[in-house]
This record gives sequence, structure tokens and C-alpha cells, in this order.
Amino acid sequence: MLEKGIDKKSIFDKLNDYQKLDLKYESGKILGSMCTKPDPIAMQAYKMFIETNLGDPGLFKGTAIMEEEVISSLGELLHLNNASGHIVTGGTEANIMAMCVAKYLFELRSNNVPEVILPKSAHFSFKKIISMLSLKPVYVPLTDEYKMDVSKIEGLITENTMAIVAIAGTTELGMIDDIEEISRIASSRNIYLHVDAALGGFMIPFMNNENSNKLNFDFKCEGVTSMTIDPHKMGLAPVPAGGIIFRHREHLELLAVKTPYLTKDNQTTIVGTRTGAATAATWTLLNYYGKEGYREIVKKTLDLTKYTYKKLKNMEHINIICKPELNLISFTANNIPVDNLQEELLEYGWHVSVAEYPHAIRLVLMPHVKKEHIDAFLTDLNKLIKKE
Amino acid sequence: MLEKGIDKKSIFDKLNDYQKLDLKYESGKILGSMCTKPDPIAMQAYKMFIETNLGDPGLFKGTAIMEEEVISSLGELLHLNNASGHIVTGGTEANIMAMCVAKYLFELRSNNVPEVILPKSAHFSFKKIISMLSLKPVYVPLTDEYKMDVSKIEGLITENTMAIVAIAGTTELGMIDDIEEISRIASSRNIYLHVDAALGGFMIPFMNNENSNKLNFDFKCEGVTSMTIDPHKMGLAPVPAGGIIFRHREHLELLAVKTPYLTKDNQTTIVGTRTGAATAATWTLLNYYGKEGYREIVKKTLDLTKYTYKKLKNMEHINIICKPELNLISFTANNIPVDNLQEELLEYGWHVSVAEYPHAIRLVLMPHVKKEHIDAFLTDLNKLIKKE
Repeated sequence: MLEKGIDKKSIFDKLNDYQKLDLKYESGKILGSMCTKPDPIAMQAYKMFIETNLGDPGLFKGTAIMEEEVISSLGELLHLNNASGHIVTGGTEANIMAMCVAKYLFELRSNNVPEVILPKSAHFSFKKIISMLSLKPVYVPLTDEYKMDVSKIEGLITENTMAIVAIAGTTELGMIDDIEEISRIASSRNIYLHVDAALGGFMIPFMNNENSNKLNFDFKCEGVTSMTIDPHKMGLAPVPAGGIIFRHREHLELLAVKTPYLTKDNQTTIVGTRTGAATAATWTLLNYYGKEGYREIVKKTLDLTKYTYKKLKNMEHINIICKPELNLISFTANNIPVDNLQEELLEYGWHVSVAEYPHAIRLVLMPHVKKEHIDAFLTDLNKLIKKE
Repeated sequence: MLEKGIDKKSIFDKLNDYQKLDLKYESGKILGSMCTKPDPIAMQAYKMFIETNLGDPGLFKGTAIMEEEVISSLGELLHLNNASGHIVTGGTEANIMAMCVAKYLFELRSNNVPEVILPKSAHFSFKKIISMLSLKPVYVPLTDEYKMDVSKIEGLITENTMAIVAIAGTTELGMIDDIEEISRIASSRNIYLHVDAALGGFMIPFMNNENSNKLNFDFKCEGVTSMTIDPHKMGLAPVPAGGIIFRHREHLELLAVKTPYLTKDNQTTIVGTRTGAATAATWTLLNYYGKEGYREIVKKTLDLTKYTYKKLKNMEHINIICKPELNLISFTANNIPVDNLQEELLEYGWHVSVAEYPHAIRLVLMPHVKKEHIDAFLTDLNKLIKKE
């Protein structure tokens, strides 16, 4: 650390240099992130509330009301009245909270090592959780469609099963597990079911036709106990805005820790001090767009996904892993190994990511990605493939 | 959730209404928070980097460099070369990371329930951690000075001790444990020692005379394995800016989880997606103020603490709990029970907090609190006491 500080101009010259090294979402070059450029109106709201701390909600009563309204809106969106939950730092904290609740419920009835049944496609946050919470993971294999093989679940349940985790929008392929069926199993066996809809939570409700509501993936399924839904992914909110929703208030309350010196008696998040800015941004987005607005955002994203899918499908040497259910597409090329292809694309400036299972190039078509970016990307991809 | 969104003007009218319900730090009425008004230059830097995500550092290379520089600077400040660590969401995540490392080290040698030795004055985040990580807490009583009773530690160590936790700036009274002596014990018994300096980390180094450096509380003490130091407390950074520093890189790496689809191979924070804005703000503050600037900030804060202490000491019916070591003062009144006094002060608009042990009114003199606020507060306090 410097003894004497440096002047303001030099500071901002350096900050500008660092900023130049960062990629920008609007460049369209980020094709492998589940985050996106925050919506301008969300940014405005965020900046208004940067000083707030929802870890001490008695001081920031207005922001605290917004959090309640956001949780209630997200609950409704997911077919739940009187939702309990919080806007937290992201999907990881949300998943930790759900797994903590399941663990504490388990500990009320058993001293054994708690087991969590989860698909091989679960997000890596569960690896962190399993070590932190000392859980025994019981992995369910995937079907040919890369979804949790529901037929295998019953056979994996033991007296030590503390929870089942299902995914609505897997990180690697965007697949949606058969929540309706998994919920039936969880319900009949009285097992805690957590649905990680970090990505899908802000998409699936807007893909369904309001009347028919084909895909049941939320609290409409009676076995669903808690859900992760992240405003900072397809909700267009700035980071850190994750969401955790519990069906029962008493479950959230299992997380309560006494906070003697704060303005509220207890705290039910993992993180203590937490910004209210992301909550204000989320409140703004939900009210500004409404369901109608989000339907349009999701439609655009899915239209571009379909467009990209068709183009890739017709491209020589390209094999698509599976038909997209959300806004992710993964593929391999016959004539270039996946990791080499990723590197070569990077030389053209394209930041794609690589899925592990199956090993493939992974595209995430977030709202910052436009048709012209995809066209330019496909042109470069085609060049690379032809070159071989 | 609304079907149709509402117009921009109505949104901002509502946001303004909510903002009016929030307290502002500059009002001087917040006398019980360890957060404060972020420095203007930090806010400017923060706003420049809101879109960044250090969970995917390959996309935000400039911001990632700033994080490295911040960790290295904080390490140096705490007498550690080649520090490893991260800017995380706050003291809670920092403490979780330290306790996870200690737990994983313990699990390499034992299957027993790991025990953590910590003072009764430890922050409530440790209650969360103990439940989450399934640790057995072994509480050390406090001395008359409300510090961890060092003489009791040896007797509490067992083969299952996974870590000792000491505090440099307790949440309730701002007391600093005898880290030097605790470090000696930890060192001689080869036990992991974590120092929670969430508050003190940005104060103690600037209180010491550079040459004599009287108070050893950091990595200068050989037994100290990791430290929490929060830029969003006395560092003047906006939330979320906690800091965790490890002496050994291989300890941080025990937290590594493979992140196949991101731009870096693994992740060593608890939270996944995380804003780089707070890191940019912290980088800016460290470079803008340097040690010299922080020395001045800390001096002002401690001068006001001394001033308040003297005034309170001379006030009839007031009993001060102990002489402040940092910027916290706790007191009771002879003639009004603590909780009543808190409520009556609230009627005058003063948001003081209440310490649990000992039960007392707790003031935190953060940089947003000025002499005129304290004078007005003392006048009101005096009125209340005289009224009885």
C-alpha cells in the first residue's frame, strides 16, 4: 500500500486503462455468460440506492419494503401466494440457503450424514455446498436428453435423504428437468425438493401461454419446497441480485440468527451486510416491464436462439448436442477438437465457453447478443471449419 | 407481478418515496452501524464498474488485475508479502471462507466433529457458520475488559480443535483481543488461527506509530493464518466489499471448485457471480488516500470518539462500560433501562443500537458522524436523563 496517495486525475487515467482491458457486453463478444448488460432503468435505480444496507433493514425502511414487494412478485410469478425469501448475492447463496434449511430439518430427526439427491448437471455451487455442509451427494445420471433420469430417483432414496435438487435451466445446456414428476416423488416420500431455476425462473413463466401454462416447474407442483430465481441473469438486474423463495415462512426462519445490535431481531440470509441497490433495481424492472415486457424480452432471446440453432444445424461439420429448451446451444465440430476450436474463436475475439458434459462449445444467447453478432460469429466459425 | 408495466415517471416517483423512508448517513442520525457513507471518489469508481463480474475474471481482466493489487496492498498493510485472498461480499463470507479452510484441513487428519475455539464476543456470523459447517463451538469467557481470556485457551484445546478465532475490534464494544499471545499459543500447538479484523483491519494499522508499531494484531504474529478486513467498514468503500487474506496460497486453494464453463479453471470464493465494482472502489480508495490519508481519517474518528467519551463520562447517571479501544462506546444510564432509553432516543430520531453483552447502549462513531451530531445527541440524551 502506498504511503502517500496519488492524485485524482492519475487515478481515473488508471481506472480507464483497466476498464479498457475489460470486455463489454454490448460488444456482442461475450457468448458464454449467463450475466448480461443490466437494463438502463435498472442501473438508474441501482445508483440511487448504492448506500443502502438490507443487512440492517430498520435503517432502510423504504428499501426493505421494496424487497418484500419483490419477493411477493417473484412468488406470484412462480404460483405461490405469501412467498418468503430474500434478494441475495446470487444463485450460490440462494442454493446454500435452501440446502441449509433442508439440513436443519434433517438434523431435527437424525444424526446421520444427510444425503442430497441431485442430477449430474447441477451447478458447481452444489460442489461448494456439499463440502461446506458436509453432505453426501447422491448423483442421478442423465437421460439422453441430458435431463435428470427420473426413473432412477426412487431407487436412490434412503432414510438419510435430506433433499432432492432439480434444475430448471441447466448451466451447461439450459435443459429443464421434469419437475412435475420429480415433485410427485418428493411429495409422496415427504422429501424436501429444491428447484434451481436461477436461469429458467425468469424465462419459463414468460414462455408459457398464460392459459394453458404447459410447463409446470414451480410451486404449482406441490412437492416444490424452495426455488432459486436470479434477477441478475434473465431478469436484467445488475449483480448482486439472486433470489431465493421458500413456500413456508417457518423454513426461512430456520436460518434465523439473533442480531442483537441491529435494527431487526434476526437475520435469515447467509451474507450479513448486503446492498439494497440490486433490490431496488429488481423492483424497478418488475414494475417497469411487467409480465408483458418480460414476455417480449424472452421471445426475442428465444427467437435468436432458434435462428442460431437453424444456422448451426445447416453448417457442415457441426454437430449440435441437443435441441435448446432455453437460450443455450452447445455443439462440436467434426474436424476441430473442442478446446482448439474455443482457442481459435478467441483469436477472432469470440468468448465462447466450453461445457464439460458433454464436452462441447457452449453459447448463451443473453439479451446483449444481437443478430448481427451471431451473423459475424457464424461467419468466423465457418471460416475456421473450412480452413481445416 | 403486474401484467402490464408502469411508466418511467411513476416508477421514479415511487422510488423517490421509498428513498425518503430510508435513513441517510449524512443526517448523522445513524449511530449504531459499522457501515458508513461511501467516499465520493469510491462511488465514482464503483459506478464505472457496475457491469463487471469477478466470478468470470477472464472476461474482466482489468478488474481482475485490480483485485490482485488490492489483495497485495491489504496483505502488505497487514505485514504479509504475497498475500492470497479475495474481495468478497463482506465479513461473513470472509469468515466462512476461513472456517471452511480450517475445516477442510481438519478433515485431512480426522473424522471427528471439528471444534472451533472462539470468544463469546465473536460476531454473529460465527453462529451461522457453526450451524452450516456443523462445527462444535468452544466458547472462551471474556476478561473484565471484555476481551478473550487468553489464560483459558490452552485448557480448551483438544485433539479435535480445528481453529481458534480471535477478534480485532469486537462488534459490540470494539475491543481488540490479545492477538500476539493467542498467536503464540496457536503457533506452539500448530492450530489454525483466524483473526476477524473486519472493523479493526482498517484502523489499527493507522493508529500505530509506524516505527514502534505497538499493537501486533496481524500477520506479523506468526501464528495468524488468515484475516478478515472489510473495506466497506472503515475503508469507506460501498457495500459489498469484504476482504479475506490467507497467509498461504495453498489454503485458499483448498476452496477451489472446478468451473468448467467459465474463463478461469476454478473459483475460490463462496459466492459465484460477484460484482467487480466494489473492488474497483477499494482499489481507488487505497491508491487515492494511501496510508497517510487513512491515518487522517482514523485520527478524526478516534478524536471524536475521545470527545464523546469524555462528555459521556462527565454526564450524570451515565456509566460507560469500558474505555474505547476503537470507535465504539457503550454505556448505560442509572435511571433508565437500556431498552427504554433506546426507544426514547429513537423518538428524538437517534438510531443507536443495543449491545447484548453487556446489555448497553452502543454507539459506533463512523466517519459520517460529525461533532455537531454528537453535540445534538448528547443534548437530547441529557434531556432524557434529567426528565426521569
